[in-house]
Amino acid sequence: MKAPEAVLAGMRQTNEIFDREVVAQKNLDRLARIYTAGARILPPGAPMMTGLDQIKSFWGAAIAGLGLTAAKLTIVDTEMAGDGVVEIGQAALATGSGEMIAKYVVHWKQEGGDWKWNIDIWNPNS
Amino acid sequence: MKAPEAVLAGMRQTNEIFDREVVAQKNLDRLARIYTAGARILPPGAPMMTGLDQIKSFWGAAIAGLGLTAAKLTIVDTEMAGDGVVEIGQAALATGSGEMIAKYVVHWKQEGGDWKWNIDIWNPNS
Repeated sequence: MKAPEAVLAGMRQTNEIFDREVVAQKNLDRLARIYTAGARILPPGAPMMTGLDQIKSFWGAAIAGLGLTAAKLTIVDTEMAGDGVVEIGQAALATGSGEMIAKYVVHWKQEGGDWKWNIDIWNPNS
Repeated sequence: MKAPEAVLAGMRQTNEIFDREVVAQKNLDRLARIYTAGARILPPGAPMMTGLDQIKSFWGAAIAGLGLTAAKLTIVDTEMAGDGVVEIGQAALATGSGEMIAKYVVHWKQEGGDWKWNIDIWNPNS
């Protein structure tokens, strides 16, 4: 079953905070609104990282290193998965060397009423 | 909730068929035992692909191109997700140019009594 509209709206809100506040304003503290406390990220070219401290370090370095100024996230497909959601999505990233398209799978969970990324893995399309 | 032992056993069986029959014996038809009929793969460096025909083409080219002879898959963590499982795993790949370590997230579903990969995304650790 696909995620209902109310859930999709919560997911879009989180995605917009990532784009506008974390990436554009470089507000790394707002990652606590994006990721669950025990979240795991699986970035290309690095081992898996666990928890908000490691995730903040990763994104701080990645945003600076790539010259990232925007991350427009589009929900491609969703499937309800127990009390969570499995999402396939696409990211259009504005970097210092031009636009980069990536795809991702996020396992979403609700925490404190907000939909957050609990497992986040991605890779580039080219 | 983590996947119970009976589910883990079904997952390991599928992973072993991928290693021994698909990769080592290059039996691409056995991908129908590994992936659900409507499965999606999200490989690094390419767009998402959907369905067994595209998945067979992808793995045929990837096995030949990388000189892949083994893919040892290790379940790192699981979470029951409705009637499916979200898994984080690690792959040790024997390629023509040495061992490569990759990590992945697989959304598993049961089809015809077998546990299969329904969404499969991965990236290299280095």
